[in-house]
Amino acid sequence: MEKRLKVRAFDMEVGKYEVTLNEEDARDMGLHLRDRVRLFTDHKEITAIVNTTRTIVGKGQIGLPLEVTRTIAVKEGGEISVTPAERPKSVECIRRKMDRQPLTEAEYSAIIKDVVGHNLSEIELTAFISALYINEMTMDEIAYLTRQMAMNGEMLDLKKKPVYDKHSIGGVPGNKISLLVVPIVAAAGLTIPKTSSRAITSACGTADIMEVLAPVVFNAHEIEEIVNRTGGIIAWGGGVNLAPADDIFIQVEYPLAIDPRNLMICSVMAKKYAVGANFVVIDIPIGSEAKIHDMEAGKRFARSFIELGERIGITAECAITYGDKPIGRAIGPALEAQEALRALENLPAPSSLLEKATDIAGIILEAGGVAGKGAGKGAAMEYLKSGKALAKMREIIGAQGGDPRVTSKDIKVGGLKEAITSTAEGYVTHISNKAIVQIARAAGAPKDTGAGIALQVSKGVKVKKDDPIFEIHAESEYKLEQAVRLAKQLHPIVLEGMLLKRVPEFPIFEY
Amino acid sequence: MEKRLKVRAFDMEVGKYEVTLNEEDARDMGLHLRDRVRLFTDHKEITAIVNTTRTIVGKGQIGLPLEVTRTIAVKEGGEISVTPAERPKSVECIRRKMDRQPLTEAEYSAIIKDVVGHNLSEIELTAFISALYINEMTMDEIAYLTRQMAMNGEMLDLKKKPVYDKHSIGGVPGNKISLLVVPIVAAAGLTIPKTSSRAITSACGTADIMEVLAPVVFNAHEIEEIVNRTGGIIAWGGGVNLAPADDIFIQVEYPLAIDPRNLMICSVMAKKYAVGANFVVIDIPIGSEAKIHDMEAGKRFARSFIELGERIGITAECAITYGDKPIGRAIGPALEAQEALRALENLPAPSSLLEKATDIAGIILEAGGVAGKGAGKGAAMEYLKSGKALAKMREIIGAQGGDPRVTSKDIKVGGLKEAITSTAEGYVTHISNKAIVQIARAAGAPKDTGAGIALQVSKGVKVKKDDPIFEIHAESEYKLEQAVRLAKQLHPIVLEGMLLKRVPEFPIFEY
Repeated sequence: MEKRLKVRAFDMEVGKYEVTLNEEDARDMGLHLRDRVRLFTDHKEITAIVNTTRTIVGKGQIGLPLEVTRTIAVKEGGEISVTPAERPKSVECIRRKMDRQPLTEAEYSAIIKDVVGHNLSEIELTAFISALYINEMTMDEIAYLTRQMAMNGEMLDLKKKPVYDKHSIGGVPGNKISLLVVPIVAAAGLTIPKTSSRAITSACGTADIMEVLAPVVFNAHEIEEIVNRTGGIIAWGGGVNLAPADDIFIQVEYPLAIDPRNLMICSVMAKKYAVGANFVVIDIPIGSEAKIHDMEAGKRFARSFIELGERIGITAECAITYGDKPIGRAIGPALEAQEALRALENLPAPSSLLEKATDIAGIILEAGGVAGKGAGKGAAMEYLKSGKALAKMREIIGAQGGDPRVTSKDIKVGGLKEAITSTAEGYVTHISNKAIVQIARAAGAPKDTGAGIALQVSKGVKVKKDDPIFEIHAESEYKLEQAVRLAKQLHPIVLEGMLLKRVPEFPIFEY
Repeated sequence: MEKRLKVRAFDMEVGKYEVTLNEEDARDMGLHLRDRVRLFTDHKEITAIVNTTRTIVGKGQIGLPLEVTRTIAVKEGGEISVTPAERPKSVECIRRKMDRQPLTEAEYSAIIKDVVGHNLSEIELTAFISALYINEMTMDEIAYLTRQMAMNGEMLDLKKKPVYDKHSIGGVPGNKISLLVVPIVAAAGLTIPKTSSRAITSACGTADIMEVLAPVVFNAHEIEEIVNRTGGIIAWGGGVNLAPADDIFIQVEYPLAIDPRNLMICSVMAKKYAVGANFVVIDIPIGSEAKIHDMEAGKRFARSFIELGERIGITAECAITYGDKPIGRAIGPALEAQEALRALENLPAPSSLLEKATDIAGIILEAGGVAGKGAGKGAAMEYLKSGKALAKMREIIGAQGGDPRVTSKDIKVGGLKEAITSTAEGYVTHISNKAIVQIARAAGAPKDTGAGIALQVSKGVKVKKDDPIFEIHAESEYKLEQAVRLAKQLHPIVLEGMLLKRVPEFPIFEY
């Protein structure tokens, strides 16, 4: 049944094609909340999801958000034709997945097309994610989904192949190793188009750190151009549409606080597939406060990456790393950029940073035939020591539009700071990743780029009462105070002595 | 972190506490799409779900829908304080259910409180329904959920106990038996507070039919008052807040076209628990186009009702009925009201209607001790024949505010009609429930109360070419034409001869 309805144009974006009908009109047309309608003007037509109301729009009217009025070019008071429309076929596929049936690649293709076309309601999307979370997926299905997530998005086509890449599973603060790995690998003449995320719940993402040194927002064409020229890039993944279904899935996973393992593997590898990677190192930190808690789980996870890689034509190698404390001593965008530059400049730098970065870079150098088997780490260290990695980093910074002459001394860290001192004497037995992140965020990271934490002790060292243990940097007095207060509450650095006598008082043990 | 934000009051209802923050403010506060915030004014505070935007509201502003501005009494341009808030505990319970763990009654209670308090986002709600659909529930869990659905809503407290009730699973058009069952049972001196639904996808619900004779929208207090006076009522369930979580669940189930069995059983029994029922007959029609397709599935379904009933203190008896064709010959609100009145008035009426209504009423009469074992159906028939059921129905119509003197002749059916004739000769082998519903809806049912279908043949009878087989009634020429066109396409009445030679042309076989 077709109806002519009068447009009420709402001045708002809702992120999808969703229209509002009066309940009476909806009932006339046999339509129900979340059904779909086809909207027609003389020139255009689209499908949209139905909201119903008794009050917002009257009988004979249809409320349209900006997305719809723009797409079909109608204005307040205009008329459009509306008819009921079928559910997309992919909803049927989602229901079959809920019924525990394996899906074909064509079915995953249909679903992902509707996901990225914003053609599924939040309900349908959540049902899909819930089904993937609750039910098993075969490795074939994981491969289908990965490929379809990549193919329904932009794909890089880089000149110099093979293409190398790395990915860290995350959960460990201070993990700025990409700022070392990318220039080392590119300096060795290999191609490494690194896309990174910004912080969501962490203190800062690699993209936040790199942005201290150069712009990070590039489209696919710009990335190709920079990588073809320099061999490497450190760009923000959100600036380019790689496997865009992932961002939409996250909108469902995040509020449920679920992290479906299969989908996480698909997301990582889909982005690698989309940049055309042939070889990928996956850094899997394990630790009580990391995403993966023990070696066994780490190995299982690693095997899934490798098996999926085999199916989609990517050689994956996994590095299971120690994730029970921050990497290096700096946490926060500017502090981390400074620490990474110091390492490239051959100034004193934390061994945890140097070791991890050269471990990961070394794996790539060996895979790329630039170093012999077992000689990768040494070769990577040599690119650092020789200044070749620094030269390449400056070239990349310049290509991304930053100042290629930048040095670690130029980096401005938060001018306001306060030293936190030890309340007791003892050996440092634990540094809480989660507490460190909370304090850095309270200080203003990642938005206040100068905010963050500079650790002054590491695990195993002995401290005396009133020794400085870390420094908080901030850009505003208010945030500095907040962070200091939180630091005193959370005790992110735990001493052996304290552990014995104060256990019940440490909120970190709740994690 | 607390922020003071300026109110932008949106003139729209969104059905939940949902606020819109600028992305920058959200990032400052460490908030993410669908996180929760606490809103404070000097006098009030509530928790709401966060939407983020780059455009709709600027930095320093917060967009509030009518639900929020009303509740906390703020106006455009006012200021409120906003802080991040925790996810409700029930989200953790939902995630545990996704992880296949059984939940306790306290956990179901927490979830249902948040469901009816509109405190869960659509994503959280969908994850819950998906988990219940995909994972198993123990019978204990089904009982917990049922009780909590009822207890988090209105509960009737009727004077005269025990309380009897009936429920039909649905899917069969023409099923107006409640209009006979309720007056028979009430005439026998038993209490039967029947609440019914309106049509959503069917041609008409019992509430739509009863509304031809009397108002059906009553609150809990009014229902108690009418039932205490007359022993019975036929009210619209939507007018009273019985097990309101059900309506919210349906908003998720419907767009996914899923019908989680466990949840359906919970919904039916929760409403019965809420009216205080002690004994319930469940009518389970089976047929190729009904909700339950075969006897085995019907029996399994029946056992679940009975077992759940035992746990929550309701004696349930199930009647598995023939559901492969419409009940009676009339489909559509006025046509069905007329047919039901004719049966009560002892005028000729279809045996399928009389048989089914007295079967179901008979079970209740036996349970109520009004008839001996095996004598219920005969007793029910006697209440019809004696005119006692008609007298009681008139009393109930009057109590509900209708005209107690109404007769079947007074009912106005659609003045426009067209006879559909047979295109061939043969025996009627099939009457398609779904095609009949589609045609009746095209003719205008349930909204045009006079619209619908009057069948003129029944299964097994022989018809000749050009014999009238059914009549379409409508209130508008346009809808009549539409319905006639659809009738000629769908061939709702299938003859043996036709079946052999025209099978591929019958769209009904697609169902």
